Amino acid sequence: MLNSYLLEMEDRDLFYNVTQKVNAYKKEHPDESVISLGIGDVSRPVVAPVIEAMHRAVDDLASSATFHGYGAYYGCDFLRQAILDNEYGKYGFTMDEIYVSDGTKSDSTNILELFDINSKILIGNPTYPIYRDGARALSRKTYYGKNDENFKMLIPQEHYDIIYLCSPNNPIGNAYTKEEYEAWIDNALKNNAVLLVDNVYRPFIQSENVPDSIYELPGSKKVAIEFRSFSKQVSFTGVRCSYYVLPDEIAENVNHYWRKRTINRFNGACYVAQRGAEASFAPEAQKLIRENIRYYQENARVLREGFLKAGFSLIGGIDAPYMWVKTKDGMSAWEMFDVFLKEMNIIIIPGVIFGEQGEGHFRISALGNIDLSRQAIERIVKYYEK
Amino acid sequence: MLNSYLLEMEDRDLFYNVTQKVNAYKKEHPDESVISLGIGDVSRPVVAPVIEAMHRAVDDLASSATFHGYGAYYGCDFLRQAILDNEYGKYGFTMDEIYVSDGTKSDSTNILELFDINSKILIGNPTYPIYRDGARALSRKTYYGKNDENFKMLIPQEHYDIIYLCSPNNPIGNAYTKEEYEAWIDNALKNNAVLLVDNVYRPFIQSENVPDSIYELPGSKKVAIEFRSFSKQVSFTGVRCSYYVLPDEIAENVNHYWRKRTINRFNGACYVAQRGAEASFAPEAQKLIRENIRYYQENARVLREGFLKAGFSLIGGIDAPYMWVKTKDGMSAWEMFDVFLKEMNIIIIPGVIFGEQGEGHFRISALGNIDLSRQAIERIVKYYEK
Repeated sequence: MLNSYLLEMEDRDLFYNVTQKVNAYKKEHPDESVISLGIGDVSRPVVAPVIEAMHRAVDDLASSATFHGYGAYYGCDFLRQAILDNEYGKYGFTMDEIYVSDGTKSDSTNILELFDINSKILIGNPTYPIYRDGARALSRKTYYGKNDENFKMLIPQEHYDIIYLCSPNNPIGNAYTKEEYEAWIDNALKNNAVLLVDNVYRPFIQSENVPDSIYELPGSKKVAIEFRSFSKQVSFTGVRCSYYVLPDEIAENVNHYWRKRTINRFNGACYVAQRGAEASFAPEAQKLIRENIRYYQENARVLREGFLKAGFSLIGGIDAPYMWVKTKDGMSAWEMFDVFLKEMNIIIIPGVIFGEQGEGHFRISALGNIDLSRQAIERIVKYYEK
Repeated sequence: MLNSYLLEMEDRDLFYNVTQKVNAYKKEHPDESVISLGIGDVSRPVVAPVIEAMHRAVDDLASSATFHGYGAYYGCDFLRQAILDNEYGKYGFTMDEIYVSDGTKSDSTNILELFDINSKILIGNPTYPIYRDGARALSRKTYYGKNDENFKMLIPQEHYDIIYLCSPNNPIGNAYTKEEYEAWIDNALKNNAVLLVDNVYRPFIQSENVPDSIYELPGSKKVAIEFRSFSKQVSFTGVRCSYYVLPDEIAENVNHYWRKRTINRFNGACYVAQRGAEASFAPEAQKLIRENIRYYQENARVLREGFLKAGFSLIGGIDAPYMWVKTKDGMSAWEMFDVFLKEMNIIIIPGVIFGEQGEGHFRISALGNIDLSRQAIERIVKYYEK
């Protein structure tokens, strides 16, 4: 009676084992101050102009004259227009190609409903595991790609219909360059493949050769669907608002078909969230948001330099809030986790959580508090000086 | 490449043809005042205690000390506890059996991911069409049931794995009695079927013999999953918050499996919406909400008596905000629609929109403004006096 994928699916939240081990350790050592470098949630509060817009939206709901009921299934026009004006209009998109939703976790899997159930789907390894488990929930099968030495997925020799590209990458923390994107687009055009580009960490991009969007590159509109989120940018992880771009050129009438699907599967994102997201594009809000991003970037710099000083080798942390660190002394990822927790009271995320090719590595995050990062680095440097 | 259901799916929003015809008529007759009795959205604003709670939730997001990031995938504990305390605890459920989400449109289809893809699914005819089209999007096939003379679906002779029961019913506006629910439960127990009970219009129930929940009846926890929403009750159609009850007794470890799925497919409903929903259970809020519901019930009474006075026969409008009216003079549903629009400047919803067995009927709604309903009834009575 039950869907068989549920029985196969790994028996835990991504971070379940981490949480279990940390809680057990804290119980045994109640006086130790444990610092988490594992945090994937944001820590900066929502900026004032966005807060004010959300208050206004709540007030709209309080009287008949301004009450807002069902919104458009694919997002309110005011927000889709703001997205065009500030982000995607410059690539020539129209409102009909923009869909507002409640989060990229849902969006990046739900989009599979657009494609044939037997589509061959390629994902990274390590990967944001939602691509795999979300696809399974929708009765689709995924295949793992192979990596280059920087953990960037290599263009496959075999044909795949759908390819997930996460760039800037979670968990690795690096991003595709212009040339790398061009190679993916070229390959997708030749092989009639669709690229699902998870670009939620876009605000963190700093490198000149990393495009803000795959749509900067010719041919991309024929093959790429790009996903964006307000979660990390506007600290909306609890508020929930995201969007994605489905170019008309992907297939004949593709937006006509996808609107039919969306009408039947979703009733729109929260009005208050959409008004907040709209307000986040205003110049004053953008200024404050950039300060938040710079805070995380400074935090990444502290962590990066600290780990390097302690003798680790790592990648990432420039164009994304994550860094991918090699374990020391040939330790497994979970052995390294234990050393950090028990010897230094620091939480890191074992790389194997993101796929077997993550063995021998761990992920650290710059989304937490910078003072705690500095304390953590002190402990690490001190520990390895011994 | 595209999923084939998209090509088969009806080429419009449920109300697309209604909107097209109404807009064309208004363009030709700009001076006529057209009254809609078709509205499915709420019209009463959100009550003050809920507004205040949402403002407080927005303020929580503005400072580091109170910032709320990712919430639990299946809903914040404070809201699930409030749901237990006020609605489902009395049936013996625990927090692990309650899932908070963003709307019953999504929930009532997403739940199909719990069950085998080849499950045989029964829906009404007429039906809330989302059950059919949502199932198609998830590569599932639905079958139509047969009705009794009151448009209540009859218990089928053949076996079905999953059966959608919408009670109080949209579009018919009536509800299952205790005895009718008992017969469905009995049949489901015998046939190893699961009942998906869409109970979003629960606050409108007035008849003594209509249970507030299917869980009032013995055996129901083995076979029924019940869906509820804050949309109509708290005027949250634009805010988006819903929940459902998945009883442990449905299958061994069912909630263990469903949590695994939910972790991978959803990131929780908007924090502001969840705080508003929580506040809606407070006594002062409930008092105001009941006033809103009474407003719609009085509106339903006005419409019901008015249509009866004009010589129509109808059902519904007692336990739901909808009424199901038989056309006059053997007219088809769309012919009747044209008479109402062109002769009386009133919008009704042709029953065929909800399935072919809705032919010869139309739906009217009491969710609009009562003064406009009174004007509409005047026009109707006058027209049929001629």
